[in-house]
Amino acid sequence: MAHSLNRRKFLQTSALAGTALLWSPPIKANNHDIANEIGKSKWDLDTPALCVDLDKLEQNLKKVHTRLAGTGVGVRPHIKTHKCPALASMQMEAGALGVCAAKLSESEIMLGNGISEVLMTGVNVTIPKIQRAMALRRKHPGFIQAVDNPQNAQDLQEAARATGIMADVVVDIDVIRRSGVMPGKPALALAQMVDKMPNLNFRGILAYDGGVQHVKGFQKRRERALNTFEPVVDTYEQMKKSGLNLEIFSGGGTGTYDIMSEVPGFTDVQVGSYLFMDCQYIEIGGANNETEFDDFAPSLTVMTTVVNTNHPGRLVTDSGAKALTLNRPTAWVLGEPDFVYNAGSDEYGTITFEKASKTYKVGDPLEVIVPHCDPVVNLYDKIYGIRNERVESILPILARGMSQ
Amino acid sequence: MAHSLNRRKFLQTSALAGTALLWSPPIKANNHDIANEIGKSKWDLDTPALCVDLDKLEQNLKKVHTRLAGTGVGVRPHIKTHKCPALASMQMEAGALGVCAAKLSESEIMLGNGISEVLMTGVNVTIPKIQRAMALRRKHPGFIQAVDNPQNAQDLQEAARATGIMADVVVDIDVIRRSGVMPGKPALALAQMVDKMPNLNFRGILAYDGGVQHVKGFQKRRERALNTFEPVVDTYEQMKKSGLNLEIFSGGGTGTYDIMSEVPGFTDVQVGSYLFMDCQYIEIGGANNETEFDDFAPSLTVMTTVVNTNHPGRLVTDSGAKALTLNRPTAWVLGEPDFVYNAGSDEYGTITFEKASKTYKVGDPLEVIVPHCDPVVNLYDKIYGIRNERVESILPILARGMSQ
Repeated sequence: MAHSLNRRKFLQTSALAGTALLWSPPIKANNHDIANEIGKSKWDLDTPALCVDLDKLEQNLKKVHTRLAGTGVGVRPHIKTHKCPALASMQMEAGALGVCAAKLSESEIMLGNGISEVLMTGVNVTIPKIQRAMALRRKHPGFIQAVDNPQNAQDLQEAARATGIMADVVVDIDVIRRSGVMPGKPALALAQMVDKMPNLNFRGILAYDGGVQHVKGFQKRRERALNTFEPVVDTYEQMKKSGLNLEIFSGGGTGTYDIMSEVPGFTDVQVGSYLFMDCQYIEIGGANNETEFDDFAPSLTVMTTVVNTNHPGRLVTDSGAKALTLNRPTAWVLGEPDFVYNAGSDEYGTITFEKASKTYKVGDPLEVIVPHCDPVVNLYDKIYGIRNERVESILPILARGMSQ
Repeated sequence: MAHSLNRRKFLQTSALAGTALLWSPPIKANNHDIANEIGKSKWDLDTPALCVDLDKLEQNLKKVHTRLAGTGVGVRPHIKTHKCPALASMQMEAGALGVCAAKLSESEIMLGNGISEVLMTGVNVTIPKIQRAMALRRKHPGFIQAVDNPQNAQDLQEAARATGIMADVVVDIDVIRRSGVMPGKPALALAQMVDKMPNLNFRGILAYDGGVQHVKGFQKRRERALNTFEPVVDTYEQMKKSGLNLEIFSGGGTGTYDIMSEVPGFTDVQVGSYLFMDCQYIEIGGANNETEFDDFAPSLTVMTTVVNTNHPGRLVTDSGAKALTLNRPTAWVLGEPDFVYNAGSDEYGTITFEKASKTYKVGDPLEVIVPHCDPVVNLYDKIYGIRNERVESILPILARGMSQ
């Protein structure tokens, strides 16, 4: 194995030797024993390793549809969470209307890997990017783009005309002063402008309230979500009165998935974290459990290894901020409720505790729930699909690092 | 271009279609116009884009050697900062004794890409990893491993014997209760144990004080660095008296590079950030400038684009935590001292300000110094090498994500 690893690495990387000028796709040293990893116990994986429990994942995939059945609200999962075409396929098979992507490069990866319906929630604002987006739309009729200002609408129209296509567009409405056109008149005017443009096809609106998703306590979250959304709903009503096509009214997330059906005309929730869950979401509480949001099962974990036990009440692991990010609350160690995990150091995690279920020694594996799933997944190239504690599949995170 | 992009993407990724079972290296959509990027203005790059100013980089590469000339202290740069063999090569050419790597997977990438001298500062504690490390040592005589406990030394000895090699080893000494054996008797005993083992070659010690690197104020930092290091120096003296080979006494970082020569017997500093600099290091002050650590030039930046200007005193960019991490102080916008950058959101950055040098509009590029270089670099697959504001080279970050 050692020999073939070195040989393969040499063959794969020799093109690079002596020059930094030409780009070649990253060569990963840890590809060498992938074929041997299927069937391996998750406790034997080299760490840090990102894992998803497939039973829990499949349960979550179904649960969001079961829970929303009969509400009139569909599901358009946001792939910014997992960046993985294989998981997007599973979401489509489970009944999603399509998926959302945050960035153009993510959209390219999804559409290029078998996902036919992609709504890009971010706007493309530079001409080269708009041209790339239109080329993507020419190839993939299921690609829908967002727009949030009049100049951008004109740029989109011009690029669509130059590409010789009709491009599907939704207007993004400002909810938390981050993206979107202001609700009310500006949004209505923009929608009407888009609707009249010869090469743009107005499909509806989106509005994402990122601020409310992690409000603790279901009723508190519900009230804030509905209050904050009032200007958007007013805008929707005005657009409807004006005769605009509003087949899409998209928004919401895992924190509000069971609240958005109260919004008139609302068509689909952009859930992402429901698939994995994480410490941040578990803490917010759900409709049926005020202290723990347990509608979805925490399926995503990182396997880590104890590397130092020199100091009492303290364990050092091989998973720091480069494996878990700096998000808070920090990682929870499964089976060790008293452990406090600090991932503030880049390369090392430090656990402090007063009580432990056993005496840990150097080399022992630990499994942790991650602080915030989206940016953690973005650190890894693959997710191990685990069933009954063994590796059943390996899911490449093909859109990892695609922040463009 | 659009057609060839789509065709290439299809060809590259078609092996994946229909199955998530088999691993293939990540396919990056943004490879399509790499050949066209050389010569491009950095202001025209698709964003977020990680850039290094080559003039400043080269200045930093030289400066650390100039400054340390005559002190008897050499330079063994830590590649955990850049994870990029091309930059490691430049460091070796500039006079480094070798490089440090934090993890085994990083070491494999460096040794497999032309860097012959690698000291791995982290310990390998599981048997499969130790076996992999020994296979690496068999292939690359310049690979040095750390050990920090007796059981680990025995495991290394056994694996070296099984591999049929003499393995070079340094003992890591505990400074900040993170890694290493306790200084004094435990460290001495471990070193003597290693020294007597038939298949291990004791080369010396390392001791890293990660806590002191960012202490603000040079004199305060110097005092703390030297005080904290006293037990390590005592241990060094005991080892020397006992007749051990101490050709390596490695430690320190960018924050203490010009302090460690005061430590008796010290051989080399493990500087990393000196190459790039970042907000965290600039703030600590240097020996000649108490408020700004300007020994090294800030060469590393991220190019970002304004995507929303709807609200006065507020700009939204396309670079959030997935482009800049959650580290603090947050990014500094070049040329805009009044801007406060918030990268707390995964996909978006939000800048608030009272004064701006100009009126910004949607699509305008901005350039920022990153909060903390190591974890930011770990988010990207390549660094654009910039000279006179144009792309001169593209540096693949081959060890990106190599936290194992």
